[in-house]
Amino acid sequence: MDVIARFTQAVHIVNDRLEAMTQSLYAQLQTSSVTDLRSAIRSGSYQGQTAGLADGYLQANLAILSKDYALDFMRFCQRNPKPCPLVGVSDTGSSALSTLGASIDIRTDVPAYNIYRNGALSDTVTDISDLWQDDFVVFALGCSFTFEHALVRAGIKLWHFEAKKTVPMYRSNIMTRQAGPFGGETVVTMRAIPASRVEEATEISRRYPLAHGAPVFIGDPNTIGIQDLYQPEWGDAPPPVKDDVPVFWACGVTPQNAILKAALPLCITHRPGFMLITDVDEQAEVPFV
Amino acid sequence: MDVIARFTQAVHIVNDRLEAMTQSLYAQLQTSSVTDLRSAIRSGSYQGQTAGLADGYLQANLAILSKDYALDFMRFCQRNPKPCPLVGVSDTGSSALSTLGASIDIRTDVPAYNIYRNGALSDTVTDISDLWQDDFVVFALGCSFTFEHALVRAGIKLWHFEAKKTVPMYRSNIMTRQAGPFGGETVVTMRAIPASRVEEATEISRRYPLAHGAPVFIGDPNTIGIQDLYQPEWGDAPPPVKDDVPVFWACGVTPQNAILKAALPLCITHRPGFMLITDVDEQAEVPFV
Repeated sequence: MDVIARFTQAVHIVNDRLEAMTQSLYAQLQTSSVTDLRSAIRSGSYQGQTAGLADGYLQANLAILSKDYALDFMRFCQRNPKPCPLVGVSDTGSSALSTLGASIDIRTDVPAYNIYRNGALSDTVTDISDLWQDDFVVFALGCSFTFEHALVRAGIKLWHFEAKKTVPMYRSNIMTRQAGPFGGETVVTMRAIPASRVEEATEISRRYPLAHGAPVFIGDPNTIGIQDLYQPEWGDAPPPVKDDVPVFWACGVTPQNAILKAALPLCITHRPGFMLITDVDEQAEVPFV
Repeated sequence: MDVIARFTQAVHIVNDRLEAMTQSLYAQLQTSSVTDLRSAIRSGSYQGQTAGLADGYLQANLAILSKDYALDFMRFCQRNPKPCPLVGVSDTGSSALSTLGASIDIRTDVPAYNIYRNGALSDTVTDISDLWQDDFVVFALGCSFTFEHALVRAGIKLWHFEAKKTVPMYRSNIMTRQAGPFGGETVVTMRAIPASRVEEATEISRRYPLAHGAPVFIGDPNTIGIQDLYQPEWGDAPPPVKDDVPVFWACGVTPQNAILKAALPLCITHRPGFMLITDVDEQAEVPFV
């Protein structure tokens, strides 16, 4: 066995151990308080994904950018509330999100961050303290976990929950409304729902306007520019839909797509699936503690 | 009869005629299309209040301020969504609100505007073309007409509708969340509702988060700092509540109160009751045409 093969094997072993440790810690954290969970994330001891953690608390997508772009980005969110439901905005230069949790420090309290430079992913890190700038504005956006939990409570089964997979995501041909440099296609998620429960699923999700609200499209994927339902652009490929109906919701990856296209010098987001956990009840009418 | 008395009498006669003309035009406009209605407002031929006009279309509160304050004001709205539900924000320097109507020109399309300078009302005008600045940002905020129409459709009687009066408004002790220079008390409206229908009224209004949503308080006015229910700070004094329950909703005058306190060099709002009429269905899930 040559040196490179030995080295590769060693890396795999370390990776597998890290994965096993993360899974073991995940199992422990499922029963932790929000405070303990945030401590584990802040210290860097937990760097995994957050689906299924902090049951009942609002989780949020994240975008951090310079104040020079903040007004346009906020207008983009206001004009596209289904993909970009704003649940919190920091003061300029502040790493606190006081309306979402008394102790949140956004520089350390997300398990993993994507760093985008000039429209390309440049790094994925677990702490952004050394990248912090005094002109940063932090945007937190609602996420689909909120309405998914409500669907599951109503007895509507979701494949990706049961299979522990990530919901499939697609770039649709539904265009967002432009604001300054921000625009582009709406990214959508797909959940296959029995025909008899589509109306109910629609009405349940409509109750959560800060978690993408009602579907943006129901039916033939081709109509919204999706060529192959079984080859999503992000997330996992779904099993055959069969007699179910494909139902499409606006997705929180839309602002990341807009940020990429705008090619800002520097922008930081969460790593998809690795969300900000807030102190706010995910059922709250408005996201206030 | 001296000169001043004659002059005063002449002014009263002209005022009475203007009032009669406005009322006659109001009656005509009640059956007009939104386009005709906006034309009448744009040309200055109608300068009256808008309650009861353009049935089924979203009407909006208005705030126009320099881009220097726009990000903070937008944060104020995001942090206080019940009194300040944003339904539209213009591009900087643009008098269009493209998401609320293809042809809106905000400089002419509101029946009357209040001009605030350094925290005091300096003028009320019917056209702001000569005051327009290239750094202005226009904010449109949802208004209570939307949920009031839904209450009336459900058979819940509203005194101020039947008496053709203005809903009473009060400065409560419920503080808004500060953003930059914007803060202060939440202004609330009061509607007396039969005890048996308070829950229904709450649930109906909750469906309209862009029109102030569910009540902020139900019950004894003293609890939220209102000393005398029969001496409102704005609007008309209500008749005795008797066996009904006083129900309080967040009010669109709250941002005007915040703007006054912030004492900006120049800020323009609608004259309360004289709203922007949009092309958008007031029942729409999100305010998009």
